[in-house]
Amino acid sequence: MTLESTFAAIEPLDFSAMAAADARQARLTKPPGSMGRLEALGTQLAGISGVCPPPVPEPVAVAVFAGDHGVHTQGVTPWPQEVTVQMVANVCAGGAVVSALARQVGADVAVVDVGVAGDAPPHERLTVAKVARGTADLGTGPAMTPGQARQALETGIAHAYRLVDAGYRLLVTGDLGLANTTPSAALVAALTGTDPAEVTGRGAGSDDAMLAHKVDVVRRAVARLDDPFDSITVLAEVGGFEHAALAGFLLGAAARGVPVVLDGVIACSAALVAAGLEPGVSAYLVAGHRSSEPGATVALRSLGLEPLLDLDLRLGEGSGAVLAVPLVQAAARMLAEVATFDSAHVSGQMSGQHQE
Amino acid sequence: MTLESTFAAIEPLDFSAMAAADARQARLTKPPGSMGRLEALGTQLAGISGVCPPPVPEPVAVAVFAGDHGVHTQGVTPWPQEVTVQMVANVCAGGAVVSALARQVGADVAVVDVGVAGDAPPHERLTVAKVARGTADLGTGPAMTPGQARQALETGIAHAYRLVDAGYRLLVTGDLGLANTTPSAALVAALTGTDPAEVTGRGAGSDDAMLAHKVDVVRRAVARLDDPFDSITVLAEVGGFEHAALAGFLLGAAARGVPVVLDGVIACSAALVAAGLEPGVSAYLVAGHRSSEPGATVALRSLGLEPLLDLDLRLGEGSGAVLAVPLVQAAARMLAEVATFDSAHVSGQMSGQHQE
Repeated sequence: MTLESTFAAIEPLDFSAMAAADARQARLTKPPGSMGRLEALGTQLAGISGVCPPPVPEPVAVAVFAGDHGVHTQGVTPWPQEVTVQMVANVCAGGAVVSALARQVGADVAVVDVGVAGDAPPHERLTVAKVARGTADLGTGPAMTPGQARQALETGIAHAYRLVDAGYRLLVTGDLGLANTTPSAALVAALTGTDPAEVTGRGAGSDDAMLAHKVDVVRRAVARLDDPFDSITVLAEVGGFEHAALAGFLLGAAARGVPVVLDGVIACSAALVAAGLEPGVSAYLVAGHRSSEPGATVALRSLGLEPLLDLDLRLGEGSGAVLAVPLVQAAARMLAEVATFDSAHVSGQMSGQHQE
Repeated sequence: MTLESTFAAIEPLDFSAMAAADARQARLTKPPGSMGRLEALGTQLAGISGVCPPPVPEPVAVAVFAGDHGVHTQGVTPWPQEVTVQMVANVCAGGAVVSALARQVGADVAVVDVGVAGDAPPHERLTVAKVARGTADLGTGPAMTPGQARQALETGIAHAYRLVDAGYRLLVTGDLGLANTTPSAALVAALTGTDPAEVTGRGAGSDDAMLAHKVDVVRRAVARLDDPFDSITVLAEVGGFEHAALAGFLLGAAARGVPVVLDGVIACSAALVAAGLEPGVSAYLVAGHRSSEPGATVALRSLGLEPLLDLDLRLGEGSGAVLAVPLVQAAARMLAEVATFDSAHVSGQMSGQHQE
């Protein structure tokens, strides 16, 4: 498996299945268009699976990619770096928010350590694939080498392939990494050409002074990038290991024809990287929610994605994406299980001829 | 069971359980406030159940109240009236959109016929409690008598009591009734003092001319109401049997201390009636989604409710509310199952002392 073979394996959606889904939506026992966004989502799932009705996408796997960030030393978050490894253990033990929400929707959660500084205790839910013990400080130079970026991307691809091989049919992005909204903001700023002040948020709780400093760190990092640049160069200069792995994860899911639900700003910035490498990946993405981090909205707009949920969430871990899973499954189930006007003997002609 | 005894049984939320929930939210392994709307929802559920953490609200029952409307003869919808009874049979058979979505979230669906013109075949999921075979035409006079309004209200209350007695701990509103967005618009206009043109929508598919006529019908109906008026008078003059039953259903759920998820404009207009009768009911309501019918947004604003979903849905049946069920359950599950900073040995102090 190489990056290039993965790009080559990503196919356009099946337009005949999508046309069949649109036609079927119109025959279901409901006014045309009355299920709004869920109808378009069902059609997307038909295009991804290549059949109509599409199978309900299950079982569901949440992949939480975890890494640490050299930029933490710049004071861009009020939380200590050891929280990353502590939260890895918490997710493995089933005690994190994403763990509880995954139980609610029947999803399995596993962690992939692509670069945590410390070592969590071994656990069946933990895969250790460290590229390094944290990135270098993007505030002063490249966060990683191009080789490290490629290694993290390929780790993400391999994990997606492993999950699809294990039978999972809906993948969900998760992330852990103290300070990781800083590289996210830098990626969004660089890849969309947006001013850093517009895409940098408070993350897990920065105050005004810390936010101003964070914007400054992002601005200086992005300024180092020369035009023109490719996505891997940007990723290596200002990204993070979990961002790289997530970008690979998205590409791997698309290459295997499986839809993937994006969480917040970390996943959305990774999606920009993935789409920069292979634009065809976007058709396989579902935006789970609109994070309250400003970079998420800018990234989603650039990707042409409209999020399913908007609940003022800003936790990460995959928490918002997991909450969207029942909506994705419902969109497929609707196409598969709702009766048609003919089958249910419901008067389906909606026109003047029926008006009284 | 009388209306008055139901009003008297509705108690304020338990503020000590809510304070305990707020305090617990702050100790969970996540940045304070990072789960946004779900945190407030969890606190509401604690206040309703009177304990912290609140139990995950399950099992779930969707009650689809069905009725026909004399105003159908005014030509306010392009669909024939017999669709109501056909859709009752479709829901009973498990073929409606709400049926498929309820299977997705593990909810049980039943229909209460409070005034359908025709007769669906007997079914274990169908309770027949007709007040009449459709209301009178609200375009020309009162839709029902005050006695009919009260009877439908009490039917809704009794159904909520029956479901809670059967063990259900989360109730969901559903509705069926051709032309029922017309009485909904009239109720919202009358009870919020909003111009009918601002709260009347296209329902299941009115064209421009039909919409203009619908606004005119609503305007004339609302104009018959004298100031001051009470909610039962308004309900009888311009409402529908399912609106009345839904208002009773909300009051009954609140009287028994069970949260209830509102669907679209029919449920929201019924909630205005319920809150007019007993303002304490509002604390037990969860707005499932923002219907694209304009009256829903006006009603929700008046009720002080912010919807969980906004997916351009306008089907009714309970479909949008059912989709919100996993969010409600997740809010409670988070409080019950997420580890605290202490229990998970995660560094919880977030302040300058931890900055580097």
